[in-house]
Amino acid sequence: MADPSVAGVTQQRTPDTSPVTVVGLGPMGAALAEALLANGNPTTVWNRTAGKADRLVARGARRAASAAEAVAASPVTIVCVADYPAMHAVLEPASGALAGRTVVNLSSGTPEQARDAVAWAEQRGARYLDGVIMVPPEAIGRPDTVLFYSGQSACYDAHRATLDVLGGAAQYLGDDPGLAVLYNTALLGLMYATINGFLHAAALVGSAGVASAALARIAGDWFVPSVVLPLCAGVTGQIDSGDFPGDAGDLRAHLTVIDHIVRTSRDQGMATDVPGALRDLVERAIAEGYGDKGYASLVELIRTPAG
Amino acid sequence: MADPSVAGVTQQRTPDTSPVTVVGLGPMGAALAEALLANGNPTTVWNRTAGKADRLVARGARRAASAAEAVAASPVTIVCVADYPAMHAVLEPASGALAGRTVVNLSSGTPEQARDAVAWAEQRGARYLDGVIMVPPEAIGRPDTVLFYSGQSACYDAHRATLDVLGGAAQYLGDDPGLAVLYNTALLGLMYATINGFLHAAALVGSAGVASAALARIAGDWFVPSVVLPLCAGVTGQIDSGDFPGDAGDLRAHLTVIDHIVRTSRDQGMATDVPGALRDLVERAIAEGYGDKGYASLVELIRTPAG
Ligand SMILES: NC(=O)c1ccc[n+]([C@@H]2O[C@H](COP(=O)([O-])OP(=O)(O)OC[C@H]3O[C@@H](n4cnc5c(N)ncnc54)[C@H](OP(=O)(O)O)[C@@H]3O)[C@@H](O)[C@H]2O)c1
Ligand SMILES: NC(=O)c1ccc[n+]([C@@H]2O[C@H](COP(=O)([O-])OP(=O)(O)OC[C@H]3O[C@@H](n4cnc5c(N)ncnc54)[C@H](OP(=O)(O)O)[C@@H]3O)[C@@H](O)[C@H]2O)c1
Repeated sequence: MADPSVAGVTQQRTPDTSPVTVVGLGPMGAALAEALLANGNPTTVWNRTAGKADRLVARGARRAASAAEAVAASPVTIVCVADYPAMHAVLEPASGALAGRTVVNLSSGTPEQARDAVAWAEQRGARYLDGVIMVPPEAIGRPDTVLFYSGQSACYDAHRATLDVLGGAAQYLGDDPGLAVLYNTALLGLMYATINGFLHAAALVGSAGVASAALARIAGDWFVPSVVLPLCAGVTGQIDSGDFPGDAGDLRAHLTVIDHIVRTSRDQGMATDVPGALRDLVERAIAEGYGDKGYASLVELIRTPAG
Repeated sequence: MADPSVAGVTQQRTPDTSPVTVVGLGPMGAALAEALLANGNPTTVWNRTAGKADRLVARGARRAASAAEAVAASPVTIVCVADYPAMHAVLEPASGALAGRTVVNLSSGTPEQARDAVAWAEQRGARYLDGVIMVPPEAIGRPDTVLFYSGQSACYDAHRATLDVLGGAAQYLGDDPGLAVLYNTALLGLMYATINGFLHAAALVGSAGVASAALARIAGDWFVPSVVLPLCAGVTGQIDSGDFPGDAGDLRAHLTVIDHIVRTSRDQGMATDVPGALRDLVERAIAEGYGDKGYASLVELIRTPAG
């Protein structure tokens, strides 16, 4: 029953056919339930607004009359609602059904909320695995889709075959249940920083009439993968050791270049809020004695702003 | 005579054996001259501090006694000095030798300086091509090395075989001589934005004891190439048309996420200067009426900060 997807990636089929419950049927929860149905897992669904289950029931899902009934129907309940308060609102009334079950929570939140959820689940005799989704609903169910999980490794291992149905390139990040949402936040920060850098670059070349697609091609095919990402990978040893040799270009030299970027942008009549804040951070780092250190030494100021 | 390079990339050999002059023998100029010598081009060199030519002369370069003699020795003179004022300082005394010659300037500067240099060269009867180098000296001479050029296409075409010796994946960006340095500035801005985003992300996961190499692997192997860069490429139509549909997530929704990143960072005791400036920019965009537009609409504020 492997459906070829639009993007040419074949929908996977894992040998797993454990019963699974999906609670929360927004765009993402519905995509999770669909992937399980397509794989042949007996799938029970529940959503606060019951009508959202109709399409899935038509495709073979079992409709639970309550969250408690949904949890009772399968060894694993996947929760995908707006946030952690919503998860608690959904599962609290199902507390009696949780003993001996596993909850996999794929709702967005903070590391603290994820860590607290473990204790909450334990008090009800349930195992708990935290996870996050960083792809759109269309990507769910593909063999190359990355989902992140963290928490008890035994729990991840026990349900790995089922989780692989949702995204075949799952990554288990470690024992700390807060890791998945923390990586999520960190990567989203990197995403906004990069996209904003791209918008700024597009405005700069646009000031000379260059279409941003030309920039995207050079940035995407060559500059970011071949120059920028290796630079990031190349400084991880420095970031983790706290030793930042400046011989391949120190912060003072980088400030000259960053200042040039800010001034060129201003000369084109552009806003310089974000690159200006970066320049100020570099200036502060130099004032705090990092002038002859490498660029990655900025991480010290980011980690502990007091200096 | 093709030397296999350390990185496993075979040094190319183009059939070109035109005589070439290289003026400016800092780390980069010396690498350019070495690539030409390795390819078999008769290479004349000159540097203000004459001793820097010694190593190249030992490898077969001809030493010119003056910049004028250097320019007179070859149809093409490649200039690679600190900046445009340095280029003018070097070539002004050689003005008499410039008629009928081509100057390829690979020194860093601003679009305005590049455009002015064309007129300056024309007054002396010389053709002028502008270029920039965004790779370290070690990458010079490889078939996969990207160098950027802009200005008269006839001039680029006439000397393409020679320029390919310096970097085999050269990109000609267009007639406007300011384009190469403008792309350079734009891409460097993207680089600093991205690396800074990476340092911030590294500090975030580091707060839970995660080594930044783990983050670099996920960011470099998957997240940036598979999620972030396609997002950038996907909004180029919006950037160029000025039409920013918000249906795949509007600025108000993005603000919630960015605010979450800033607050999570602050909760970890981290500096939030740069992501905070980004959040302020998004807030300003919403205040100016972009709340229901897509994320790329931020470029409007970057282009024309007055709103
Ligand atoms: N959609 C995406 O592209 C995407 C991508 C990555 C991650 N995510 C994450 O996936 C999760 C689900 O996202 P989504 O896009 O499906 O939609 P969403 O709008 O984030 O969440 C909608 C779901 O949450 C339920 N819900 C909200 N508050 C509730 C409450 N107090 N009690 C019970 N149920 C409540 C809704 O039930 P009702 O139907 O009854 O309102 C619905 O099932 C979120 O954490 C989101 O951040 C989504
Ligand atoms: N090195 C890199 O990794 C790299 C990467 C990309 C681009 N670039 C660009 O390539 C260009 C050259 O860089 P570089 O690394 O070789 O060294 P650099 O330190 O930027 O420039 C040194 C060269 O400029 C000459 N120079 C400076 N001021 C001069 C003046 N007033 N009159 C005459 N000559 C003058 C120096 O001559 P003396 O020897 O007599 O001082 C030397 O030849 C720069 O524009 C740089 O931005 C370099």
